Amino acid sequence: MSGTARLIGVGVGPGDPELLTLKAMRALKEADVVAHFAKSGNASNARTIVAGHLPPGVTELPLRYPVTTEIPKHAPAYCSRIRDFYDASAAAVAAHLDAGRTVAVLCEGDPLFYGSYMHLQVRLAASYPTDVIAGVTGMSGSWSAVGTPIAQGNDVFTVLPGTLPETELERRLADADAAVVMKLGRNLPKVRRALDRTGRLNRAIYVERGTMADAVMMPLAAKADDDAPYFAVILVPGWEGRP
Amino acid sequence: MSGTARLIGVGVGPGDPELLTLKAMRALKEADVVAHFAKSGNASNARTIVAGHLPPGVTELPLRYPVTTEIPKHAPAYCSRIRDFYDASAAAVAAHLDAGRTVAVLCEGDPLFYGSYMHLQVRLAASYPTDVIAGVTGMSGSWSAVGTPIAQGNDVFTVLPGTLPETELERRLADADAAVVMKLGRNLPKVRRALDRTGRLNRAIYVERGTMADAVMMPLAAKADDDAPYFAVILVPGWEGRP
Repeated sequence: MSGTARLIGVGVGPGDPELLTLKAMRALKEADVVAHFAKSGNASNARTIVAGHLPPGVTELPLRYPVTTEIPKHAPAYCSRIRDFYDASAAAVAAHLDAGRTVAVLCEGDPLFYGSYMHLQVRLAASYPTDVIAGVTGMSGSWSAVGTPIAQGNDVFTVLPGTLPETELERRLADADAAVVMKLGRNLPKVRRALDRTGRLNRAIYVERGTMADAVMMPLAAKADDDAPYFAVILVPGWEGRP
Repeated sequence: MSGTARLIGVGVGPGDPELLTLKAMRALKEADVVAHFAKSGNASNARTIVAGHLPPGVTELPLRYPVTTEIPKHAPAYCSRIRDFYDASAAAVAAHLDAGRTVAVLCEGDPLFYGSYMHLQVRLAASYPTDVIAGVTGMSGSWSAVGTPIAQGNDVFTVLPGTLPETELERRLADADAAVVMKLGRNLPKVRRALDRTGRLNRAIYVERGTMADAVMMPLAAKADDDAPYFAVILVPGWEGRP
């Protein structure tokens, strides 16, 4: 398949390998190189999702985030190190494109919705033929696993990072009909208080690994502890005026 | 495949038939009955998307919205007529479930995100085994087609119906890092003014039929007229502090 320089951001969905799209499957077949982001020492989630569908012998390009735990997240040194990492990743992908190869970059969920792939897109799309294959988001996977309608009709739907200050979370939750709170981890106690104070605790649903066999789903009010992985989400269904 | 009463809400994605998931394909194969919502006299978009994948001879159950143009949308008569329609649709689906059939309900985009399927889910899921298969949303299809990252990091992302009052649109656009405005149609002039007054007109992108061959995508500022179908969307990308 060599000879066609092309960058493809491939959404591989939220975790269940059956939530891959036909288009993502085709991209994997057509790829000369399959790239994926991962933390040092960890397997890439996106790579795990497609493991059963990678062509035998395909070239893999792991893009490993630098270990940055020793630098505070908002420090200029952190930003500069992350920027250097994305620059180097784009250069590594570009080297394959310059050799006339098709590079598929695996993206958990949807490539352009809170993902790392967009850092390659903004650096490379002006210079190389590029396609982005939309994927099922982790949020959709979560509310589908629970079976709860999230938003309807004229609902305003908002996605909030749990990293926001508590007063800001409270203000925004009070102002949304339906919401998803992401990036939980150690932010959960703060998020729980904000949901309680805005009268939304009783409809909040806690979801971990929504589309996987070991999924955890429960009303947040029934969750006794505040242990949560960073990628757990809280769903706050809207749709209060249902017909 | 008869003998298994099961309701499946099947997300079929935003329009491109290749954005069907493997799981949706399997549900179509396993279905005894394929149901779809459509306006009277119109083809169902979801039905069109899967047309190439329906098993020959499968039983189809079209669920046709009542013609309601003669009744104003917020009138009690409209609500009651729509409620009756969803009740009757649920009864029609239940009749097949009671006969031990698997009923796949086709849903454009994602079943539980601003769709009609949820009216069946809330009426039937307590009484019958039910699965919901998440799908790629129209929004994801749109920003992927444009190739524009929509939200990143700590961005607050908001979905706004264009039906909101103008001052409300303006207030909420000013408060969001990233946004999608849906339900355009004759709301476009109002939405455009709200974007302009919040300083967001220059990054707003207008998209019609994002994943289809006849897609229309342009900066909203370059769109000379205010003609827009109801299902066009406006993307307001966030991510202003990108590394």
